[in-house]
Amino acid sequence: MALLSPSRRLRRTPFSDGVEAAGVKAYTVYNHMLLPTVFESVEADYHHLKRAVQVWDVSCERQVELRGPDAGRLMQMMTPRDLRRMQIGQCFYVPIVDETGGMLNDPVAVKLAEDHWWISIADSDLLYWVNATAHGWRLDVLVDEPDVSPLAVQGPKAEELMARVFGDEVRDIRFFRYKKLAFQGRDLVVARSGYSKQGGFEIYVDGTDIGMPLWDALFAAGDDLDVHAGCPNLIERIESGLLSYGNDMTDDNTPHECGLGRFCDTHSAIGCVGRDALLRVAKEGPIQQVRAIEIEGDPVAGCDRWWPVFAGGKKVGRISSATWSPDFKTNVAIGMVKMTHWDAGTIVEVQTPDGMRRATVQEKFWN
Amino acid sequence: MALLSPSRRLRRTPFSDGVEAAGVKAYTVYNHMLLPTVFESVEADYHHLKRAVQVWDVSCERQVELRGPDAGRLMQMMTPRDLRRMQIGQCFYVPIVDETGGMLNDPVAVKLAEDHWWISIADSDLLYWVNATAHGWRLDVLVDEPDVSPLAVQGPKAEELMARVFGDEVRDIRFFRYKKLAFQGRDLVVARSGYSKQGGFEIYVDGTDIGMPLWDALFAAGDDLDVHAGCPNLIERIESGLLSYGNDMTDDNTPHECGLGRFCDTHSAIGCVGRDALLRVAKEGPIQQVRAIEIEGDPVAGCDRWWPVFAGGKKVGRISSATWSPDFKTNVAIGMVKMTHWDAGTIVEVQTPDGMRRATVQEKFWN
Repeated sequence: MALLSPSRRLRRTPFSDGVEAAGVKAYTVYNHMLLPTVFESVEADYHHLKRAVQVWDVSCERQVELRGPDAGRLMQMMTPRDLRRMQIGQCFYVPIVDETGGMLNDPVAVKLAEDHWWISIADSDLLYWVNATAHGWRLDVLVDEPDVSPLAVQGPKAEELMARVFGDEVRDIRFFRYKKLAFQGRDLVVARSGYSKQGGFEIYVDGTDIGMPLWDALFAAGDDLDVHAGCPNLIERIESGLLSYGNDMTDDNTPHECGLGRFCDTHSAIGCVGRDALLRVAKEGPIQQVRAIEIEGDPVAGCDRWWPVFAGGKKVGRISSATWSPDFKTNVAIGMVKMTHWDAGTIVEVQTPDGMRRATVQEKFWN
Repeated sequence: MALLSPSRRLRRTPFSDGVEAAGVKAYTVYNHMLLPTVFESVEADYHHLKRAVQVWDVSCERQVELRGPDAGRLMQMMTPRDLRRMQIGQCFYVPIVDETGGMLNDPVAVKLAEDHWWISIADSDLLYWVNATAHGWRLDVLVDEPDVSPLAVQGPKAEELMARVFGDEVRDIRFFRYKKLAFQGRDLVVARSGYSKQGGFEIYVDGTDIGMPLWDALFAAGDDLDVHAGCPNLIERIESGLLSYGNDMTDDNTPHECGLGRFCDTHSAIGCVGRDALLRVAKEGPIQQVRAIEIEGDPVAGCDRWWPVFAGGKKVGRISSATWSPDFKTNVAIGMVKMTHWDAGTIVEVQTPDGMRRATVQEKFWN
């Protein structure tokens, strides 16, 4: 691995002191902010995540805040998902598309009030898109990045740990719902969500000042639960089919290509700027799509660029994320494959850094 | 320094193979792309840059391309700099502002034709702002990120090296002008510009396929000139007062606060979306501004967060970039200081990681 030069431009977070004290070994950069990637090792972190509970500094999921009478209209302009029945207290995973139907981000929208939303973003400056749209369409809405930093608590023991800090009310929070719960006198949005399939919560920490007190409280309460500092885990997220914007999809891809068609209500999402462009793909389907792919042989190298996928000497797709899975004892991968070769069981070849490998398109992801 | 986890999301460049073969030691991430920061050492790279010639992979200066009848109008909407007298063949440094006058980027605009522009961007997704503005205002323009990757040739021997590869025509290119010069049958934009004050050029490499051939040609031609792989150098850029978006300024700052008032023609830049917001600051001046600051004592630690600046116990500013300068034998820094304390010679105190340091506001930067 290469070294990362520090600078203010790669922003620290309210939890960076805790992350460093916990022995972070590597980072990535996400929304101009430091995102830890390794504590003990990717594999040790993975095993621990699946059996205990971890606290993740995911401050880099920055919020784009919409406030004002046109907030709901602006939110619907961004996405082909129909938001009309979305309730206050709900979180929606929303593909965000431009006027050509290309994906700009795949955030979680949090509806705080009819006129107040947070968009908890993946790695692109969605603030610029939202703000320019609000301005260009002369909408009555304020758009800003507030001082709100998500802290995730993930793993099978997450609920127990959260209940000790926030009370038993957390147990009643349903998936992709939130409650406002008090910590040191401040009401925080606590959602049952997170970038793993091991269960857990995301706390939208409202104010840098309360960051380290909450971090410390979680560790103090979880000693017997074996709570560790952790981070989104490469192995677990591929096993679980959790896509990563910039890795598995870009603004070249429609939501349908990313397998996110179920989050698109292209006919009823009136106002979505990408609606016209998506109507045909919504009706006829895409010509390539994300698939789980198993790559045979020894553990593959790190996937730092797209690996071409071939069949019969022709390029039929690309791998965008890949790693060895200790639990499934195979190489698990995420790829985009043309419709001619996307059926489960199709044998393809992947050009990895150490040569061609046989691979099989899977019916579904592993977790 | 921490380690950087590789992933496809942190994009490689057309020159990455050359950068790796040259022994890159560290990176930063810039516009979702790898930007080298160290080859031999920051100090050795610095001395070499000032005496010889370096080839820099600055592909991360991505281009936002505007094409169409409204390209010029859209370009003027972005910036308070009056573009009316800008000629084809010129490059303009243009502060880009939002409707509140806050800086969104500080790129170089390249005018290729009346209806064809490139914006060579600093570290933010300006594509999103430009595209949403074009869409919101229903402008007749296409906005895209083309496969164009700048390669910089910097240092006192840059002109000689460039002349050997592109011919003596490069010697006639004036500062912030460009010519289209052929390399292997392809016409490339070659501008006299770059992120150092040691002189040099930026080649807008149009097409990934031609990247490594050009890289190799430059090294083959420059052996006796002691050509090295290099990168923007922290010490040299601070000595030269070259600001870094995200370090020295953010969208909280107006161009005037950044000392970029000379690039603002707020009265005549009709159409600039931030014009109204900037009229008052253009007339009365800002209340804080970027300054060169000398920090006393031993070499300071890396500046990975804003260091508060105090005077008489009150906070009067912040340092955003700082390092030891071997040539000037002092710590050189860039900060933002309130008008009460921005006069040259003012003594202030800087809170560095190893304690309070005496510091002095300078009349100007060092190079």
